[in-house]
Amino acid sequence: MKNKRSIGVVLFPGFELLDVFGPLEMYGLAPDHFEIQLVSEKGGEVASAQGPRSVADVAFCDAPSFDILLVPGGIGTRAEVLNDVFLQWVVGQSKTCEYVTSVCTGSALLAKAGILDGVSATTNKKAFDWAASQSERVHWVKEARWVEDGRFFTSSGVSAGIDMTLALIQKMLGPDMANSIATLAEYEWQNDASRDPFARIYGLV
Amino acid sequence: MKNKRSIGVVLFPGFELLDVFGPLEMYGLAPDHFEIQLVSEKGGEVASAQGPRSVADVAFCDAPSFDILLVPGGIGTRAEVLNDVFLQWVVGQSKTCEYVTSVCTGSALLAKAGILDGVSATTNKKAFDWAASQSERVHWVKEARWVEDGRFFTSSGVSAGIDMTLALIQKMLGPDMANSIATLAEYEWQNDASRDPFARIYGLV
Repeated sequence: MKNKRSIGVVLFPGFELLDVFGPLEMYGLAPDHFEIQLVSEKGGEVASAQGPRSVADVAFCDAPSFDILLVPGGIGTRAEVLNDVFLQWVVGQSKTCEYVTSVCTGSALLAKAGILDGVSATTNKKAFDWAASQSERVHWVKEARWVEDGRFFTSSGVSAGIDMTLALIQKMLGPDMANSIATLAEYEWQNDASRDPFARIYGLV
Repeated sequence: MKNKRSIGVVLFPGFELLDVFGPLEMYGLAPDHFEIQLVSEKGGEVASAQGPRSVADVAFCDAPSFDILLVPGGIGTRAEVLNDVFLQWVVGQSKTCEYVTSVCTGSALLAKAGILDGVSATTNKKAFDWAASQSERVHWVKEARWVEDGRFFTSSGVSAGIDMTLALIQKMLGPDMANSIATLAEYEWQNDASRDPFARIYGLV
């Protein structure tokens, strides 16, 4: 095993802030194990759905193959499901990643790209129907904080990405490391993937 | 009352990602009520403690007076407590803000600047002693998710900023709005300011 796993986070205009920075806080608290790179189609500044801009370290054409791919959601997904350059880059990355992960409506992008064909996955609960409409070949799970299916980890909306990331860190590095990171972040980790009150709130179950 | 409250978030090298973007996700989910600006000493790109860079919209010299000031923590606070330009800018802003808020060790910066003299406040629990050493004139609270004292809201470490921000939104806009935002973020809001298991974990109580 390499010393550090590389995390590639794909940004696009209108990405949801916490979808990106919740998981990156957790990975970032274990700097001996993970190195983070932000990626976008052209590199440089990318504006979030909430306004604040982040800087992509590298453009698609210059990005290495990552060990872990993180695809966030946000209102910008409505444009990216129609962006073949974006979808094909994600397809290419996903072929070699150890883990393919998404937060919120990021799974709609993975679904549209065909990456989740035959895979169980979840997504944002308010936008569930829109996300599910991107592919009938995905086994969409309505009630779940996150879904693990082989090397695919997909989370429910926004804050759920934090819980999913801790679960993935636990899988890779063990429960002591995951709990240590949660404690450093003073975060009471919701570590039950099946607990999802928002599925009921949004009328999915 | 103005239509929207302005949120000024001060960035510095080594700011903690979730300290900034947890609260901004919550404010950002109510775009009719809040407008967000990132500020730094010189404007432009600022690297977080975890590596990813964000873009300050405006430099200190060009920043307007904000309605709500948000001061994050992170390892970079160790340098900023010695940066008079930084501290004096925060002092100036704090005089006119409707609310002065901090996440994690951001309260150490407020304390060092003298802004919290005579005020009850909390901070990151692992770094509690360092933060408290910045000023003896603050009433430091060891066990609290966040502390509200007049127009000052200070939170415990990292993820606690999300809970504090929802409490402040509740104070400004009512519980229905705060709960609506938490639900949009699929976040089970920990809305008890006195609940703080991390004070015990880190040996403060």
